[in-house]
Amino acid sequence: MRIGVLTAGGDCPGLNAVIRSVTHRALTYHGDEVIGFEDGFKGLLEGRYRPLDLNSVSGILARGGTILGSSRLERARLHEAADNWRTICSGYGLDVLIPIGGEGTLTAARLLAEAGMPVVGVPKTIDNDISATDRTFGFDTAVTVATEAIDRLKTTAESHQRVMVVEVMGRHAGWIALESGMAGGAHGICLPERPFDPADLVAMVEERFARGKKFAVICVAEGAHPAEGTMPYAHGEIDAYGHERFAGIGARLAAELEQRMGKEARPVILGHVQRGGVPTAYDRVLATRFGWHAVEAAHKGAFGCMTALRGTAVDLVPLADAVMVLKRVPEDRMQEAESVF
Amino acid sequence: MRIGVLTAGGDCPGLNAVIRSVTHRALTYHGDEVIGFEDGFKGLLEGRYRPLDLNSVSGILARGGTILGSSRLERARLHEAADNWRTICSGYGLDVLIPIGGEGTLTAARLLAEAGMPVVGVPKTIDNDISATDRTFGFDTAVTVATEAIDRLKTTAESHQRVMVVEVMGRHAGWIALESGMAGGAHGICLPERPFDPADLVAMVEERFARGKKFAVICVAEGAHPAEGTMPYAHGEIDAYGHERFAGIGARLAAELEQRMGKEARPVILGHVQRGGVPTAYDRVLATRFGWHAVEAAHKGAFGCMTALRGTAVDLVPLADAVMVLKRVPEDRMQEAESVF
Amino acid sequence: MRIGVLTAGGDCPGLNAVIRSVTHRALTYHGDEVIGFEDGFKGLLEGRYRPLDLNSVSGILARGGTILGSSRLERARLHEAADNWRTICSGYGLDVLIPIGGEGTLTAARLLAEAGMPVVGVPKTIDNDISATDRTFGFDTAVTVATEAIDRLKTTAESHQRVMVVEVMGRHAGWIALESGMAGGAHGICLPERPFDPADLVAMVEERFARGKKFAVICVAEGAHPAEGTMPYAHGEIDAYGHERFAGIGARLAAELEQRMGKEARPVILGHVQRGGVPTAYDRVLATRFGWHAVEAAHKGAFGCMTALRGTAVDLVPLADAVMVLKRVPEDRMQEAESVF
Amino acid sequence: MRIGVLTAGGDCPGLNAVIRSVTHRALTYHGDEVIGFEDGFKGLLEGRYRPLDLNSVSGILARGGTILGSSRLERARLHEAADNWRTICSGYGLDVLIPIGGEGTLTAARLLAEAGMPVVGVPKTIDNDISATDRTFGFDTAVTVATEAIDRLKTTAESHQRVMVVEVMGRHAGWIALESGMAGGAHGICLPERPFDPADLVAMVEERFARGKKFAVICVAEGAHPAEGTMPYAHGEIDAYGHERFAGIGARLAAELEQRMGKEARPVILGHVQRGGVPTAYDRVLATRFGWHAVEAAHKGAFGCMTALRGTAVDLVPLADAVMVLKRVPEDRMQEAESVF
Repeated sequence: MRIGVLTAGGDCPGLNAVIRSVTHRALTYHGDEVIGFEDGFKGLLEGRYRPLDLNSVSGILARGGTILGSSRLERARLHEAADNWRTICSGYGLDVLIPIGGEGTLTAARLLAEAGMPVVGVPKTIDNDISATDRTFGFDTAVTVATEAIDRLKTTAESHQRVMVVEVMGRHAGWIALESGMAGGAHGICLPERPFDPADLVAMVEERFARGKKFAVICVAEGAHPAEGTMPYAHGEIDAYGHERFAGIGARLAAELEQRMGKEARPVILGHVQRGGVPTAYDRVLATRFGWHAVEAAHKGAFGCMTALRGTAVDLVPLADAVMVLKRVPEDRMQEAESVF
Repeated sequence: MRIGVLTAGGDCPGLNAVIRSVTHRALTYHGDEVIGFEDGFKGLLEGRYRPLDLNSVSGILARGGTILGSSRLERARLHEAADNWRTICSGYGLDVLIPIGGEGTLTAARLLAEAGMPVVGVPKTIDNDISATDRTFGFDTAVTVATEAIDRLKTTAESHQRVMVVEVMGRHAGWIALESGMAGGAHGICLPERPFDPADLVAMVEERFARGKKFAVICVAEGAHPAEGTMPYAHGEIDAYGHERFAGIGARLAAELEQRMGKEARPVILGHVQRGGVPTAYDRVLATRFGWHAVEAAHKGAFGCMTALRGTAVDLVPLADAVMVLKRVPEDRMQEAESVF
Repeated sequence: MRIGVLTAGGDCPGLNAVIRSVTHRALTYHGDEVIGFEDGFKGLLEGRYRPLDLNSVSGILARGGTILGSSRLERARLHEAADNWRTICSGYGLDVLIPIGGEGTLTAARLLAEAGMPVVGVPKTIDNDISATDRTFGFDTAVTVATEAIDRLKTTAESHQRVMVVEVMGRHAGWIALESGMAGGAHGICLPERPFDPADLVAMVEERFARGKKFAVICVAEGAHPAEGTMPYAHGEIDAYGHERFAGIGARLAAELEQRMGKEARPVILGHVQRGGVPTAYDRVLATRFGWHAVEAAHKGAFGCMTALRGTAVDLVPLADAVMVLKRVPEDRMQEAESVF
Repeated sequence: MRIGVLTAGGDCPGLNAVIRSVTHRALTYHGDEVIGFEDGFKGLLEGRYRPLDLNSVSGILARGGTILGSSRLERARLHEAADNWRTICSGYGLDVLIPIGGEGTLTAARLLAEAGMPVVGVPKTIDNDISATDRTFGFDTAVTVATEAIDRLKTTAESHQRVMVVEVMGRHAGWIALESGMAGGAHGICLPERPFDPADLVAMVEERFARGKKFAVICVAEGAHPAEGTMPYAHGEIDAYGHERFAGIGARLAAELEQRMGKEARPVILGHVQRGGVPTAYDRVLATRFGWHAVEAAHKGAFGCMTALRGTAVDLVPLADAVMVLKRVPEDRMQEAESVF
């Protein structure tokens, strides 16, 4: 079999572990050939690829990023690819394509699969917001990085009787904020799934100060937003280069709290450190299993599917199921977190 | 409601997170009282306990060990406790007991529950070998510590063209060896579930050296053992204090490999560092959720159960199901690992 | 002897290790008494303190922050304290005061010492900018946190062919940027000591891209600034609460580079994570030694001094020498860093 | 200039950082050529080397081990090399050799230098026992790894009311035990520099238990030994392969304490994890500076020297001074540690 693999979309710890696992399983067990396309679908369309052997994937298990590079692709070119999938496959001698990516990539994969191309997807997102899989690799690393930051910020908040607002990733789903907030013992968590009222946060802080706990840490997802009318509208500001720039919710919330409470509140925006670097052991194992099962799926002809963690098993689920609806934090998970504030 | 909580058996990162979560949920949401028994069931039998409030569980989320202490108890005293559960409960004014522990503790919990005592168990083991729950807290921390060690050992093995044998915990089940071996990229994994033949390991090392990869790391569970007749019988040695001491399988295997290959092979026995210290974010979240659900179970009167992770949900399962059979590494999980050696 | 100890100024990993060490040495070896003033000099002036014994400093060695709290104090109140030092000392029965703090605190300590108060200072700053000591505790932790962040950012930069600008602490001296930049392998370092020209950074990035290294990481101290006329003047922006807010140099530089190069450049502002949390082993050892030597100095009557690392020894230096001039990064240290860009 | 570089002796985090730094400085600043000999002096004698350019040292700054490999060499072959240094140098076109290594390597370097060969040494040892330099790279990493282990062991010791004996590296000098013991807050430290009496350790443990601290951690260097007559003589034991094996001091001491106290005492032997893997930020900076200064020394013709940290500066010292006497832990450093037990 000749297997093509590519990584697309945002960076995510564990991508290399999938590439390595696909290559090992395919070469060692099945005697397949594997080629890796560079910079995601772009490489596929532009004929940029390289063969992958055991040496080319040696030493990458614990490396962040992706040795194949990544990119985002316009929808128009994808449709073009879907129309020409037969030519593409025969041009490369491909028997199957394994795209590793997030929601956009899996939607593209579904498009190609529906056009008839033999595709097995591998889901990837640090945001953990893909339906049909219990967890995605990259998420545990992001939560771990954010938790370590909260651990550090707690002592500084306590020593200075301060409120720290930590902004973590999560534009549409608040999983990172939820789990790092719980793991770090944050005293408030704001998620995109539920608009927050700054008054509630002020009340929480005041209650803590009243009983002698003179600090608080609030963990806020970048996509969280205040309930209508609870915070002044943020005007985009025009920077020196003529771009309108908006302060993130972390900075805005810290300013709002400081204003309301008359106490120091400082924002910390974790940013890209959450999506780079060495993956956790959990993510390396999950990524390795996903790669293994993608190759097995290819050999079983289970196309149009993606790998998914279900309990302790890695199963295959139709791509259509995976990308229909974003997996958001349900109300009962929020309640679990709230009781330990 | 008056809730008693205790921790029993071996140390496990996340115990304090459960205690904290039980206390927070019970006090803040339900207005319960919580008392913590010291040193496991011993404290229960000997009347050693203290009330737990928000202050007593402040700052313990990320702390290893258990603020309540732990111990092992003879079976005879447990039966005695089962016979007198009514007296015990009324003596302390207990409405429910939440024991947090491993197989032994949960078996004890089952005994008490069957005698009629209102009990809700919380499973705990770094070995991840409890049936009926997808994972236990403590396991992720142990795997993380072992993986970091393997990461470190790889570079030293490579620089010195050496074979490193890393012995990790796991007397009856090889989960830690399996996952840390996969995550660390070990080139061989030996589990209790499947006797190994040192000849296979020698063949693997020779094959690696032949293609220029002049080092190897082998991850071996402390409970792994050679297939009958493949390694010389290890005589216990009498130490200076008259105790018979057996070399662990890590040391024995390294000696055997060195002998067979004429290449340096060094054992590293990770030992207790795997079960102490700061829990990972994953374990803190799981432990916190278990504590929350244990309190809810108590309020629903769901006695004789324990909390269990099932997919993304925390469910309640009968204690009887949990402790009947040890969860061992199945053959297909081994195969996933083998293809990336 | 009756020893007073206090921590003042910004948070710094290792403060608790000093407090613990002072207490242990004083109580165990000398049979002294130790009291800790709360919230820095404020506690001294307001009579807020507590006795410190072995139990009160148990378990704090590895804890960030300060169990005594900290604060900043107006100069006027300090002069008042200097005038009344005799009353203060006799009021508390103090034989010596050990203030642990940065430049401001040591200047205050000097003032008190010159007025006649028996003072032994312990220098503290994550910025490492205190003259007369080779290093200060807290600095190694800050560098370690920043280096881990750069390690993580490199893989994400590489996968996305991006420039990452990491802003680290250091308002007046660039030690953190210098050492974390070197340790993380940054491709450019900007320090307060030497105004930078964005054109040089652009040239470096272009040169890297030209030879196939399509990413770069630039480490910039918060106090770094562009050479006159090389970047547009940044207007402070008026936020929703009427405060003028300036974008930090990290954000400004990323915008400038993006503008000039037509390549993605993203800022990451590490902020307070650099000054909180568990101190590194190095900082714990240095802080412990400083505490020990401060007590010895007190017993020798070496007042008006502070502890200082000189090579491998901890010496005493006059407070006057310590605070006269800020220790800035010299040119030759910059050159060492530049050759590995 | 044509520069040869090699790494010899035991593994040490930071070796790659030196190789990278030498290559960068030599190529980028001086326009030199650099070749790297494989497996230490062996490669020099056997003609195994490769040219080093910026690409060959890319990505190695944070990698443990050495990309050049290492080995130990018999003294006889070294003398042969010294006799033929002219032929060797002209054979490779070498203008200078930069050997990076520990005591043995630096002694060899001195031998070559005395014979007339242009040599600049770079000291390396995790043990920190080389005179003439304040610290060596690798040491901080070893201390950090050991400290993290002690941090983890403390909570498990406390929960189980147990004594943990941690054996760390250090055959002739106890620096790792001293600093990791101080940083980890060990309650006893045993060094090669000072024979210990187990009775003192028992007294310490008993005193702790008496005041309610029912656990202890003892940090012991592998080269520590009991005072004459205080512990039973350890007979080497004959293993299944006919080799005599001695239990290490960690295991022996734990057994001894258990025997004397009737309390659980468990050994943990950290072993090779201390010398492998990612170097700390401190070690990366020091190693990078050493590489830089070695190249500068070569260009200044300062042969027969090695780089050395002196305070904040990197100086050159004669190889003869460096290797004459082992740097051992002085009595006053022990006293600093003891007061915080």
